[in-house]
Amino acid sequence: MSAKLMVGTELAAEMVASAGERAKKLVEETGVQPCLATVLVGDDPASATYVRMKQNRSKKAGIGSRSVVLPAATTTEELVAEIGKLSADPAVHGILLQHPVPAQIDERAAFEAIAPGKDVDGVTMHGFAAMAFGEPGFVSCTPGGILRLLQAYDVPLEGAHAVVIGRSPILGKPAGMLLLASNATVTYTHSKTRDLADIVRTADIVVAAVGRANFVRGDWLKPGAVVIDAGYNEGNVGDVHFEEAAEVAGLITPVPGGVGPMTIALLLEQTVEAAEAQTRAVSETVAHQLDHLS
Amino acid sequence: MSAKLMVGTELAAEMVASAGERAKKLVEETGVQPCLATVLVGDDPASATYVRMKQNRSKKAGIGSRSVVLPAATTTEELVAEIGKLSADPAVHGILLQHPVPAQIDERAAFEAIAPGKDVDGVTMHGFAAMAFGEPGFVSCTPGGILRLLQAYDVPLEGAHAVVIGRSPILGKPAGMLLLASNATVTYTHSKTRDLADIVRTADIVVAAVGRANFVRGDWLKPGAVVIDAGYNEGNVGDVHFEEAAEVAGLITPVPGGVGPMTIALLLEQTVEAAEAQTRAVSETVAHQLDHLS
Repeated sequence: MSAKLMVGTELAAEMVASAGERAKKLVEETGVQPCLATVLVGDDPASATYVRMKQNRSKKAGIGSRSVVLPAATTTEELVAEIGKLSADPAVHGILLQHPVPAQIDERAAFEAIAPGKDVDGVTMHGFAAMAFGEPGFVSCTPGGILRLLQAYDVPLEGAHAVVIGRSPILGKPAGMLLLASNATVTYTHSKTRDLADIVRTADIVVAAVGRANFVRGDWLKPGAVVIDAGYNEGNVGDVHFEEAAEVAGLITPVPGGVGPMTIALLLEQTVEAAEAQTRAVSETVAHQLDHLS
Repeated sequence: MSAKLMVGTELAAEMVASAGERAKKLVEETGVQPCLATVLVGDDPASATYVRMKQNRSKKAGIGSRSVVLPAATTTEELVAEIGKLSADPAVHGILLQHPVPAQIDERAAFEAIAPGKDVDGVTMHGFAAMAFGEPGFVSCTPGGILRLLQAYDVPLEGAHAVVIGRSPILGKPAGMLLLASNATVTYTHSKTRDLADIVRTADIVVAAVGRANFVRGDWLKPGAVVIDAGYNEGNVGDVHFEEAAEVAGLITPVPGGVGPMTIALLLEQTVEAAEAQTRAVSETVAHQLDHLS
């Protein structure tokens, strides 16, 4: 292979360590431990594994977790009510709803029950628009992780042509918006795109977020392109045919060890950030009330 | 010229007539007249003209209007408070904040003071995400008008390559999202894009939304391309060099008479829709309360 690897593992470990330090500092200064609530609906083993992994990483970083597990037959109303309770609970700073949820649930309604200030996974409509408009808010963790990786490897984004393959609300769409906010020229491609390979061949940066194993082939790439594989398919296989792509690309993320660890790192970082912001808001309110009393 | 004109005037007149009929029906059935509140800050003559035009068209369609005019020195807080009052006022169904607002104002904060159910101009973060995700909500009027025009002229969108020039939050960005929702492949280009002409030459559909007179030239176009000129610059000039482009394009919007009238038509249509929805919600609440009383 000729491509250089973009390794997420190390960078993610640094981010998690730094989040852990901030968490520790918050506990020392205020007695508040950041807390991430995870919500899992049903008994899909892969989803259960993801949630457990996120809880374990949280614990290692000194972030508390609250685990909500609901039966597969949960209704939208029940899930919305449960998430609403977490949104209102001052001891919970961040909320992660593991997706996909069972088919009978209106996933969008469930996401929207997450208070924007606790949307540390970046799945709400408010979060999406904030990413698109450069307003304050939490980013979707995988797209946000991709941006950090590109920055860490000094990939020039301004004026670069980024082709995003896939347009899901939590991956493709926000990834494109974050790249656009970094002044890249962004093309959204998807299942209805004609001549996909030809379009990908014009890309300086390719983000594969389509959920199909080995979908992007080596001869789709411009020599020297930066290839970000956000796919994670059965058998630890990405959306990019790694062996072929690595012969052509300039930089490429491995699967696993590329985008995946960055996603979790960003989740933890944003949970700590949420806890800091909420704690600050509470102490400002208290100070304000004390002012009024004196 | 070889291109066929995409005339907005006629289609817009039909839409306004239909909105007028719905407004009349609402008055007859419920006594409620749809009402659009316009908010103008400062004394920019062009903005004042736009607002007056929108009020006149509203009146012709049987839509009432409420006019709020604020001094150029208005602060963000004052404007937000004023818009908040309109958001809470049950006699107001739609709110239009004429932009641009004076530089000292945080325009985003002002837009966000518009209740999503009254955001008939489609400028809120919620509205943008709704367009991107295909959720219920009002569309930005110019992008929404462009889509209607493309549909009226039977332009195939699925799989077509649409290149959007410009990325403003109320024009370029939502136009791209609406085209993407219609299964087009969408490329966002802007001031930092390299080789813009080459990219535009790959487009089946070009949306020019950059605000620079005669910016898009004829030799940037693929023969037969559909050219949407959303620009409106001094002297009634669009963003596209019309004479050159009309020699190459298959379909092209004139300026004026193309996108412009569609924008206002959609504003009126959405105002009536908002009035219908709000009136329906009120009567459902009343029915519910009567149920409880009986």
